Amino acid sequence: MKKTDIPDIVIGRLPLYLRALQRMSQEGRQVTSSQELGELLGISAAQIRKDLSQFGEFGKQGTGYNIEYLLEQLLKILNLDHIWDMVIVGAGDVGHALARYQGFRNRGFQVTMIFDNDPDKIGKKIGNFTVLDVAEMVERIREAEVRVAMVATPASHAQEVTDKLVEAGVKAILNYAPIRVTAPPDVQLQYIDPATHLQRMSYYLK
Amino acid sequence: MKKTDIPDIVIGRLPLYLRALQRMSQEGRQVTSSQELGELLGISAAQIRKDLSQFGEFGKQGTGYNIEYLLEQLLKILNLDHIWDMVIVGAGDVGHALARYQGFRNRGFQVTMIFDNDPDKIGKKIGNFTVLDVAEMVERIREAEVRVAMVATPASHAQEVTDKLVEAGVKAILNYAPIRVTAPPDVQLQYIDPATHLQRMSYYLK
Repeated sequence: MKKTDIPDIVIGRLPLYLRALQRMSQEGRQVTSSQELGELLGISAAQIRKDLSQFGEFGKQGTGYNIEYLLEQLLKILNLDHIWDMVIVGAGDVGHALARYQGFRNRGFQVTMIFDNDPDKIGKKIGNFTVLDVAEMVERIREAEVRVAMVATPASHAQEVTDKLVEAGVKAILNYAPIRVTAPPDVQLQYIDPATHLQRMSYYLK
Repeated sequence: MKKTDIPDIVIGRLPLYLRALQRMSQEGRQVTSSQELGELLGISAAQIRKDLSQFGEFGKQGTGYNIEYLLEQLLKILNLDHIWDMVIVGAGDVGHALARYQGFRNRGFQVTMIFDNDPDKIGKKIGNFTVLDVAEMVERIREAEVRVAMVATPASHAQEVTDKLVEAGVKAILNYAPIRVTAPPDVQLQYIDPATHLQRMSYYLK
């Protein structure tokens, strides 16, 4: 099945299934069901069965899903059967927190470089990383063939940084700057903006 | 119109419209169109018109939307015509970054307290905040009548903290711990987990 055949909204739910299954696996569990996954995730069991059926036959009627097997298959589908190197652009508070975050590696990603344009930050240590000059970014990313980046710059720099990342060959960008950026169609873009989540919730507050 | 009549997915797009309009307003712009908003946001113009029409008549055929008027209406709809106080639970790297983030206030929220359970962190300063003992959390939140919280604890503490926040009267929780939590139906929950965004993108990588 071609990658473009499956709706992106389905792809977006697979990491949630993966996360739930990894937790069950850590707890020593061996079998689960679409019902149980659904209750854990607030997604209907029918939706989960339909999503997974797009990729093959993972469960047997009545016996549920083998957790390890489904985990392994989801890791393959999501190209997570190896660790992706990743760079961070922006060594402010968010960049700091991302560089020190311990939760990426066991989910398929590792930070390998962090860049900034501030002479006061370049050369400083963040955990095991030395902040690199953004002027060297394109060359360094090309050399290391990194394909994944997180942008944690001010909004005013996000597009310019995105353009440079694309030039360097990056194909997946997680943007923490509170602004939409544009990139060619073969580059994946995702956004994290806590204020939009807060505003979505305040609608329901009295 | 009752709040429950409008699909949550529509509500979820309103903050994106708001953000784009605020940027246009900052740039001194006065009028926009569903076409322009759509191109900026990667959403179809028809979808934007349909979403906005659920709340009233904001634009005139052929003349587009008055930016200031639409902004004002969206702020009212999203209950953002005043600033919401907000607490942070967890004074680790993510809690730190959130406490120091300057981008909440002009989008309707301000951090007023940060809590942790680590004796080494309690009493320490983060920017203008002193980290408070989570043991006092329920009482302090009740006293201050705070309704919004961000949880930046390890996954293992997220449910327990959520329960305490609910007990204290919090009605909207943005959870940074990489785990689903449960709360009563009158409590809004949103999640931020960068690894799920990265995994969604790695599906498309070669």
